[in-house]
Amino acid sequence: MPKIETLLSPALFHLHSEGLEDKQVVIIDVLRATTTVVVAFENGVDHVVASASVKDTLTYRDKGYLVAAERNGIMVEGFDLGNSPQDYTPELVTGRNIALTTTNGTRALNMAEEAETVWVASFRNLSATAEALTQNGRDVLLFCAGWKDRFNMEDTLFAGALAEQLLTMGWTTDDDATFAAIDLYSQNSHRLEAFLEKASHVQRFKTLHIESDLQVCLKIDSSRTVVYLQDDKLVGKTL
Amino acid sequence: MPKIETLLSPALFHLHSEGLEDKQVVIIDVLRATTTVVVAFENGVDHVVASASVKDTLTYRDKGYLVAAERNGIMVEGFDLGNSPQDYTPELVTGRNIALTTTNGTRALNMAEEAETVWVASFRNLSATAEALTQNGRDVLLFCAGWKDRFNMEDTLFAGALAEQLLTMGWTTDDDATFAAIDLYSQNSHRLEAFLEKASHVQRFKTLHIESDLQVCLKIDSSRTVVYLQDDKLVGKTL
Repeated sequence: MPKIETLLSPALFHLHSEGLEDKQVVIIDVLRATTTVVVAFENGVDHVVASASVKDTLTYRDKGYLVAAERNGIMVEGFDLGNSPQDYTPELVTGRNIALTTTNGTRALNMAEEAETVWVASFRNLSATAEALTQNGRDVLLFCAGWKDRFNMEDTLFAGALAEQLLTMGWTTDDDATFAAIDLYSQNSHRLEAFLEKASHVQRFKTLHIESDLQVCLKIDSSRTVVYLQDDKLVGKTL
Repeated sequence: MPKIETLLSPALFHLHSEGLEDKQVVIIDVLRATTTVVVAFENGVDHVVASASVKDTLTYRDKGYLVAAERNGIMVEGFDLGNSPQDYTPELVTGRNIALTTTNGTRALNMAEEAETVWVASFRNLSATAEALTQNGRDVLLFCAGWKDRFNMEDTLFAGALAEQLLTMGWTTDDDATFAAIDLYSQNSHRLEAFLEKASHVQRFKTLHIESDLQVCLKIDSSRTVVYLQDDKLVGKTL
């Protein structure tokens, strides 16, 4: 039976990097980078290039890409898009390519690129991702992107939601971080938004007046599209 | 109001080390290093020297110390004591000094030594430690020693127990790791032993046949003695 491990912060990555080439990794940055990417695929984007730097991302404009950049929760000036999933409308993104850089999400993607498969997931494609992981069948590392290397609540809750579902599909775990994530999710799944109210990043949302993004990010299973890395590009596949 | 932060793994220490000289730190390694130290003080030890190396610890024998060393859960050969709290009986330790080295706990102590006060705590002196922290009044970092830099369940649960008590005493927090620890503890405080059953370190206990230590380590508020670092030695004070 395949095994689940959970990485609660990118700063702990070195503890889990051994044998990564035979594992699947799920990148989790639900508020908002990985939700935004999933929404972009829901709404018909062709592919997404994730880059660590703002400067590199901007060079894709000349190649016909929409360019998207977020730093500290805010859209970087001169870009077409920031990190709000609500801006990735079908009108704007259908059939287009997007180059994207975000504070935490794209860094996590780059760290994990040696893995056998790298998935990008959010509550919106929770069950579809669990199915795709199971079809693949290799051990998985649930990689919480966190906030500047700190543990965060929302990514841990999603890791718990995904791990809980995988366990019901026959997966196993002996990892305390996974047990903790599952417990946090299962005890609070009936009141996710209220539970996240005190989380540091949701407080940051209030300062930025982007609270309506929260509902979009917590919408469970609105999508059957899974997203994964292929030749340095994120592509989608509908199950 | 003083603030609480929680360090879920020593590998995240760099995120919390700024301004440490004005903070209190609580070292948490409840299975079993910090429990063992608390029991030693309950049973009348004079002071404890915690050292990172086995070799250095052994040199204290010539100075009249009892010497204690644990690696990977097992007593190192040639020492008087390992890391089982049940071996630190009044008959053996009253009025004596102990030099101790453990896999994770003493390393955490050394990392935190710049703090204004470094406490060592366990479930056995939970409330006494909360009172001592409040008397001091400075911000606190709850430092989970973990297992070889990995997150572990038992230390996180204790951090949650302590943080929950501090909040009722007027402390504040805006730290997701603290919220998570509190939630894990408050949802499972009525069944700590059963909840920890699946934790990786408790599984390790079974292999080592040291399960009876678990009850000793989970006994809440059996002691009114707080333990702290003074001139490189751990000393006790009864509240």
